[in-house]
Amino acid sequence: MSETIEIAPRSGTAFRLLAGQRLTVIDPRGVQVADLLAYNAEDVREVISSGRTFDYAETIRLTAGHLLYSNRSRPMLAIVEDTVGRHDFLLTPCSYDTFHHFYPELPPHRGCFGNLAEALAPYGVTEDMIPVAFNCFMNVPVDGATGKLEVLPPTSRAGDHLTLEARMDLIIGLTACSAPASNGGSFKPIHYRVA
Amino acid sequence: MSETIEIAPRSGTAFRLLAGQRLTVIDPRGVQVADLLAYNAEDVREVISSGRTFDYAETIRLTAGHLLYSNRSRPMLAIVEDTVGRHDFLLTPCSYDTFHHFYPELPPHRGCFGNLAEALAPYGVTEDMIPVAFNCFMNVPVDGATGKLEVLPPTSRAGDHLTLEARMDLIIGLTACSAPASNGGSFKPIHYRVA
Repeated sequence: MSETIEIAPRSGTAFRLLAGQRLTVIDPRGVQVADLLAYNAEDVREVISSGRTFDYAETIRLTAGHLLYSNRSRPMLAIVEDTVGRHDFLLTPCSYDTFHHFYPELPPHRGCFGNLAEALAPYGVTEDMIPVAFNCFMNVPVDGATGKLEVLPPTSRAGDHLTLEARMDLIIGLTACSAPASNGGSFKPIHYRVA
Repeated sequence: MSETIEIAPRSGTAFRLLAGQRLTVIDPRGVQVADLLAYNAEDVREVISSGRTFDYAETIRLTAGHLLYSNRSRPMLAIVEDTVGRHDFLLTPCSYDTFHHFYPELPPHRGCFGNLAEALAPYGVTEDMIPVAFNCFMNVPVDGATGKLEVLPPTSRAGDHLTLEARMDLIIGLTACSAPASNGGSFKPIHYRVA
């Protein structure tokens, strides 16, 4: 039985995930988002790519059975379990600038972007190397007719989870999201396990 | 009257576009795609970002009136004219690997990815620094209910164009697309003008 680790509200972390290991991201209270990034542990210039993944999967709705690809067209992670089925792979992590844009009345916050940048810096990842994240549990419906997108509260309930299996040795960045719109205005922790 | 430059079928180019200059991308024969990338000319680590753009525009359907943002949340290009209204900002440029995946029966081709990498190399851009491109005229409808995407022939007709105004000094990468599915199976040139 592997240890469950808590990511405090509005914070982030980074860690190694070896090929074959499974990462389970858990929404312990429900209606919370976790931004996930993945880099090749041997060469962090290889990074998770929404564009390659969408191209190969032929869908923007990724769930169990799909692979998440790198910018080099190699599988980084396989989604092996998913109790929610609604995640986002369109949007970059919330940041100081997005807070300023969307919540001018709130105190600014460095957001998932700032939290990921700090957590990933020891691995040689700089801010400019942060792409579109795989945003676990983030609910971003797209209107097929108009293209309009909305950021709605996640459909995840307490204890829902997503399990991903590493296909190469990875550096993972993971957050408990800081943006009010992503999680229905409440800031909550995220839990994860590595097995 | 500025010069019209031709990008030969299945090739690409790169050039400087200064702040305030306008780039017009023209589909001279219709039903062809041009992958467009933009980098800050002073620091190519700053690059066009689908995720930042979708977040600020609140749509995946970008057209006249929209800004294309960088990974640093700064406007790079403003779309000022658009006679088509259907472009893609979900997918990475076609590459040797995507050809192998989607067209195993065809001779492999380095695709827009290889063409962009070669054209951008003199500016210090490496392959790993090529993100999701803004794919002019590429027709990628998304089913809002299921998330499924399709790559259909462009709706552009001969002479249709897209005009973008630079908001900072840029290095632009631009192709005449090499992938059969993007352009209805025909390989055609792209024209452009800078004014």
